[in-house]
Amino acid sequence: MGSKYPRSVRGCLPLWALTLEAALILVFFFFTKYDSSKDQKELMGTYGAIFQDVTVMAVLGLGFLTSSLWKQGWSSVAFNLFMLALGVQWAVLLNGFLDQSFSEVVIITLPRIQKATMSAMSPLISVGAVLGKTNLVQLVLMTLIEVTVFDTMRMFSKKFLHMPDDINMMYIHVFAAYFGLIVAWCLSRPLPKEAKKKDQIATSPSLFAMLGTLFLWMFWPSFNSALLTSPHERKIAVFNTYYAIAVSAVTAISVSALAHPQGKINMAHIHNAVLAGGVAIGAPNHQISSPWSAMVLGLMAGLISIGGAKCLPVCFNRVLGIHDTCGVHYTFGLPGLLGGITNIALKAHQANWNRDPMNSFEVLIDAGALSLFVAVGLASGLLTGLLLKLKIWRAVPPVGKYFHDQAFWEFPHLAVGF
Amino acid sequence: MGSKYPRSVRGCLPLWALTLEAALILVFFFFTKYDSSKDQKELMGTYGAIFQDVTVMAVLGLGFLTSSLWKQGWSSVAFNLFMLALGVQWAVLLNGFLDQSFSEVVIITLPRIQKATMSAMSPLISVGAVLGKTNLVQLVLMTLIEVTVFDTMRMFSKKFLHMPDDINMMYIHVFAAYFGLIVAWCLSRPLPKEAKKKDQIATSPSLFAMLGTLFLWMFWPSFNSALLTSPHERKIAVFNTYYAIAVSAVTAISVSALAHPQGKINMAHIHNAVLAGGVAIGAPNHQISSPWSAMVLGLMAGLISIGGAKCLPVCFNRVLGIHDTCGVHYTFGLPGLLGGITNIALKAHQANWNRDPMNSFEVLIDAGALSLFVAVGLASGLLTGLLLKLKIWRAVPPVGKYFHDQAFWEFPHLAVGF
Amino acid sequence: MGSKYPRSVRGCLPLWALTLEAALILVFFFFTKYDSSKDQKELMGTYGAIFQDVTVMAVLGLGFLTSSLWKQGWSSVAFNLFMLALGVQWAVLLNGFLDQSFSEVVIITLPRIQKATMSAMSPLISVGAVLGKTNLVQLVLMTLIEVTVFDTMRMFSKKFLHMPDDINMMYIHVFAAYFGLIVAWCLSRPLPKEAKKKDQIATSPSLFAMLGTLFLWMFWPSFNSALLTSPHERKIAVFNTYYAIAVSAVTAISVSALAHPQGKINMAHIHNAVLAGGVAIGAPNHQISSPWSAMVLGLMAGLISIGGAKCLPVCFNRVLGIHDTCGVHYTFGLPGLLGGITNIALKAHQANWNRDPMNSFEVLIDAGALSLFVAVGLASGLLTGLLLKLKIWRAVPPVGKYFHDQAFWEFPHLAVGF
Repeated sequence: MGSKYPRSVRGCLPLWALTLEAALILVFFFFTKYDSSKDQKELMGTYGAIFQDVTVMAVLGLGFLTSSLWKQGWSSVAFNLFMLALGVQWAVLLNGFLDQSFSEVVIITLPRIQKATMSAMSPLISVGAVLGKTNLVQLVLMTLIEVTVFDTMRMFSKKFLHMPDDINMMYIHVFAAYFGLIVAWCLSRPLPKEAKKKDQIATSPSLFAMLGTLFLWMFWPSFNSALLTSPHERKIAVFNTYYAIAVSAVTAISVSALAHPQGKINMAHIHNAVLAGGVAIGAPNHQISSPWSAMVLGLMAGLISIGGAKCLPVCFNRVLGIHDTCGVHYTFGLPGLLGGITNIALKAHQANWNRDPMNSFEVLIDAGALSLFVAVGLASGLLTGLLLKLKIWRAVPPVGKYFHDQAFWEFPHLAVGF
Repeated sequence: MGSKYPRSVRGCLPLWALTLEAALILVFFFFTKYDSSKDQKELMGTYGAIFQDVTVMAVLGLGFLTSSLWKQGWSSVAFNLFMLALGVQWAVLLNGFLDQSFSEVVIITLPRIQKATMSAMSPLISVGAVLGKTNLVQLVLMTLIEVTVFDTMRMFSKKFLHMPDDINMMYIHVFAAYFGLIVAWCLSRPLPKEAKKKDQIATSPSLFAMLGTLFLWMFWPSFNSALLTSPHERKIAVFNTYYAIAVSAVTAISVSALAHPQGKINMAHIHNAVLAGGVAIGAPNHQISSPWSAMVLGLMAGLISIGGAKCLPVCFNRVLGIHDTCGVHYTFGLPGLLGGITNIALKAHQANWNRDPMNSFEVLIDAGALSLFVAVGLASGLLTGLLLKLKIWRAVPPVGKYFHDQAFWEFPHLAVGF
Repeated sequence: MGSKYPRSVRGCLPLWALTLEAALILVFFFFTKYDSSKDQKELMGTYGAIFQDVTVMAVLGLGFLTSSLWKQGWSSVAFNLFMLALGVQWAVLLNGFLDQSFSEVVIITLPRIQKATMSAMSPLISVGAVLGKTNLVQLVLMTLIEVTVFDTMRMFSKKFLHMPDDINMMYIHVFAAYFGLIVAWCLSRPLPKEAKKKDQIATSPSLFAMLGTLFLWMFWPSFNSALLTSPHERKIAVFNTYYAIAVSAVTAISVSALAHPQGKINMAHIHNAVLAGGVAIGAPNHQISSPWSAMVLGLMAGLISIGGAKCLPVCFNRVLGIHDTCGVHYTFGLPGLLGGITNIALKAHQANWNRDPMNSFEVLIDAGALSLFVAVGLASGLLTGLLLKLKIWRAVPPVGKYFHDQAFWEFPHLAVGF
């Protein structure tokens, strides 16, 4: 059972992670304090409940969503927790520094922690594209860069494009998906046959992945309504998400059967596509004011997601050489684009209707913001990917150990057979 | 790996499901609109929380409850999601049409979606009796019929028998259980030996089923109190359910050991019987005003559930030829009957005490309602069963593929061995 | 498939459990009634939500946390439910009797049930040390004794040492851990090689254990803030726990890699140590008023937990002969001690600062309370262990069947191979 895993990695992860943690504690020491206001509302009722839903989505939902590979469940779930725990700490600081002026102490409040959790979900989404092909040091670096870039982008679009928080947070899906895909492209190496065999789904892991999918499915209405402040808008957002995601679940399962010559359903499609409706409804959200339009959007999202999963891998894998481990492109990328475009189309329609130059300007801004998020996602992903390719993160698992927990985990003898 | 599954199914499910979905979107287009009231209470505090608990019970609880069979976890969980997503859309419309006059537009509110979710749980319960022996097209049809019949019955008993919503919703257990059993009877075909082998439980799937059971166990107090409007009644309902379900868990595990010659516990019993207390307390619910009576009811429910699981299968399987895949009869049927009868007995006792003819009349009404729900469940189940036997749903899996995901799912080569 | 399990156990568990249940129902009949106040607040908003979080932690969290052993998932989860369901009933009564004078009827309220649930978590923690080496009758006895002793201790420290509920509840971790360890020591028998092989972790069970860990991780802020009454203190407690547990997750994973010669992470460490921060922050809790100190405490807790898991088993296993099945000592014992000592140190520092003799006295009281909880835990654990060794609980599984569900569960033929 001698591992081919280089010894040098031993010092690498702990050194990095503990230094980083110590640095974070220092920054917290100098620059933060707790909210000492006596405001009682915060932890009660809706607010606390939505915060918890978002946490459950990040920890359980995204953690288990990527656990469907045959021998990679441990890494999926534990690395997800590690990245989230680090990412949230960093995102709270960043959010505070960017939001207030730099001279002040960051005050830690529940809304700030919640926003930080949502920002920290971006690397958790991207990781689906590179999982099994990177080590934990690389993932930590990716987390830091991605959270920084995404939060800066959000702040930029808020301050200069005057986009509200609840809209620019919804671009997380396209941003994270394209960021992850480009990183996967940079790190792509030809996979040996053995690794391809491991890149498959099995019964029990698939059920764990289904568990993650279901947690995301159930709590998505909370995610989409989390940053809305008006109770009425929040209610509409919850309803829209509920209907869109219900229809995308129905569509995904039906179309997956349609796409197979013998009418069989593909489990990997289900993990991806049932969530497409929730992703797509994110950006237009409370602008949609009737259930049927949310349902149509959910239907289209399901179709696009399954269609992408069926047709794109060929060109992505063979031509571009991007290996998207868990289908991030179909789960988050394409439905997110659909949502962004729908948002723009809705505003354009409205502008056309009102013949108000202000509205037309807003349409342009929205279109610009969407392209900006995609472009910055691609650019920063490229930089990150090139950075991650450097030899100093020596501990990349050998290609033969791709998609296998054995590369990172102490395996008891018995467990190997399972 | 050539499948014996007929090709024709390919078009069948997607055609049906997508047409249905399109029809639903059209109906939503013409007949629904969102609640535009500025009422802020709805999504906050208790209401939103209970709605979410009910969703978790339907998606995770009932989804995983039936996943204990050896090779059938995928179908259990995914078909459950599919049926729920479709059923809820239909139930919201139905609930609106039946509740208001037909001429008006249905207003979509959170309480209405919650009631629809609870109604849509009836096919999710019934499916436990026919799982592994039907295809998804048949299940979709069953969902539509069962939700329609159950909601019509509820409306009937509300308008004409003046039973409140919180009581008539609790007859869901008996209704759904007997509906499912009769459908299973109609579809019964002699099982080959090979299929019987698959109809067994294994370690990992059983833990998933346990997960479903535990989610139901924990959130059952929310289910039983969901439709009560008075906070005091709701509190009593929560307490009663809590005690009844705690005692039925203790009873189930103890009696299961008693029933085995060597004192070993049967996992299938546990999945069924720990929930019996929650089912039984549903109908009498807030009428019971002391913990000890809830506990006694929980004890009896646990006994009846285990007793039924031990003794009835022989006569059901051999004499009647009903094969109840996941023990729906013991989990929901018998404890539901117990609850209904307890409800009547409590009212009769009260009537006897008061010597008030009004009370006696109520007892009769209650007894009538219980029998009506069972009778309509049996009758509509029979019709549905006969309908499902028609050859047009060609894609029934061959008997040899009963209880096996392979019939419906694209299986990677590796997964077969697991 | 003849079992070596003695027949006599058949009557043992059901007889005991059902008699106990009947006795409990009788006591409830004579001595309890429901809260009939019309107070509407209780079930709404924060209170109901926190109660539910605590239930989820007890049922899912602690149930699955111990399910990582190869063939023991069924016992972990189901025995946990059984012990909780019994323990809560007993703890409600006890809490009522000790809190009020004995002459009155116990009024059942939601806060009382919540406190009872938290008390009943003590045997669920201890069981981690003896799981797989005891039968269910022994566990029931242990539950009753441990809940009684712990609740009496809490009441004693509340009435005579004037410690508030929210502090003395946090000593549950040290109390339960040392109680469990001593019981394990009393029951220790040399394990055959075969049993040692079973005492290992495997892929799927580990993911279930991870699920339990994650539920505990997510909901720990609710546990630590559950008994605080001031909204401001509660907010601080939530923040502190959040930061401490995030840092301990990062630390645990990093240090686990550091401790392995090839830098591989140990899954068993992760299950234990990611929670250490939440345990350690329990006692000092709202006294800590800045994020960085909570983070330092989380870091130390993670270090101590992994350090203990790496170094102590040798001396514990070989010298003392204590076999701690699921690492209770590292998850709850050591971090709990750290938390208690931090609490005392903080108060001592404060006393030193204020030069107030009243403060110094409080420090002494706190130190006394911590030692008292540990000492009583050890003493009552010793008594319980000796009691459990008596021959009358004949049904101890033979050593060869240690850590195997087969000893207690009816196994279908097929499941054996899994």
